[in-house]
Amino acid sequence: MPSYKLTYFPVKALGEPIRFLFTYGGTEFIDNRFNEEDWPKIKPTTPFGQVPMLEVDGKKVAQSTAISRYLAKQYGLAGKDDWEALEIDSTVDTIHDLRANIAAYQYENNETAKEEKLKRAKEIVPYYLERLDAQVGKNGGYFVGGALSWADFVFVGVLDYLNYMMKENIIEKYDNLKQLKQKVEEIPAIKSWIEKRPPSDL
Amino acid sequence: MPSYKLTYFPVKALGEPIRFLFTYGGTEFIDNRFNEEDWPKIKPTTPFGQVPMLEVDGKKVAQSTAISRYLAKQYGLAGKDDWEALEIDSTVDTIHDLRANIAAYQYENNETAKEEKLKRAKEIVPYYLERLDAQVGKNGGYFVGGALSWADFVFVGVLDYLNYMMKENIIEKYDNLKQLKQKVEEIPAIKSWIEKRPPSDL
Repeated sequence: MPSYKLTYFPVKALGEPIRFLFTYGGTEFIDNRFNEEDWPKIKPTTPFGQVPMLEVDGKKVAQSTAISRYLAKQYGLAGKDDWEALEIDSTVDTIHDLRANIAAYQYENNETAKEEKLKRAKEIVPYYLERLDAQVGKNGGYFVGGALSWADFVFVGVLDYLNYMMKENIIEKYDNLKQLKQKVEEIPAIKSWIEKRPPSDL
Repeated sequence: MPSYKLTYFPVKALGEPIRFLFTYGGTEFIDNRFNEEDWPKIKPTTPFGQVPMLEVDGKKVAQSTAISRYLAKQYGLAGKDDWEALEIDSTVDTIHDLRANIAAYQYENNETAKEEKLKRAKEIVPYYLERLDAQVGKNGGYFVGGALSWADFVFVGVLDYLNYMMKENIIEKYDNLKQLKQKVEEIPAIKSWIEKRPPSDL
């Protein structure tokens, strides 16, 4: 069994889908959380100045989506064939497009531009969520193929971060997405992870 | 052989890695290009309001990265094992982070915010390119594993778009990346595709 060390800020956000996957797979990993003030020291030790970073037997790799897909393959959560893998990958990238639209507002420093981006986010969030909700409705309560996949972990894992940025429960009106969240959070391994993980707003 | 139809604007940008892959694989596809004024009509026919969209025997799928990975698997360009697939995926997402930083500038409507984002892009472009160049240097002239992969197609495929947005040849100072571009463009199938494709600035 390789040694795994995940380095990230002390938040859920982009780290949480990876933590869900390790937990689901029953794989031990070092959950290395660092505080904001240590970031300037850590940044130069990462491949492209970004976290999450995973070390596998000391080999460093960046990009949360790539890392999540790699782990999902090991745990049988990456689709039963190439077509399902494509549908899962497409869904994950769509979820991250939704996130990027919200983040464009959250991290905008210019006040006028920030207002414009909030307006755009308020339009685009329901546009995406209606379609994601319908997708889950059509696919037996999961995003793809009527079965749990890492796309479900990505959505539920980053949801608190999206809610934090939008200052509301963005899935309030979407029953299929609410049921999906509940289903993921009731998986025994995920349930016990949620109970023991360090608390964080986002 | 399934029927493939790729729908996108009449530009290279996010469509070109997919077109490179079809061409490399010797797979016929409908290269369906539409003009800007037809976008409002086409947008509602896409899964999440975005292109490129691929139709495989009529089944629609979005997200250029997911589509590219799916094709790359068929043509043996997705790595020789899961670890290489991870390194390729991580590289592709890094290239798209670079693109997103440039696009944040390109598509900013607020003049003050646009200037700030250009400043940020001018810092981040060399930061990424130095590291991508070094990666190619360390890996035998390709991004991963000393062999052609779809990460190379993504980089070379989107490069004209990045150059267009930055109004300069961003790889001018990076010899490994320049050699990589040349190598990809000299692959016989890619070479003849480049000769016959409709011209476009980006």
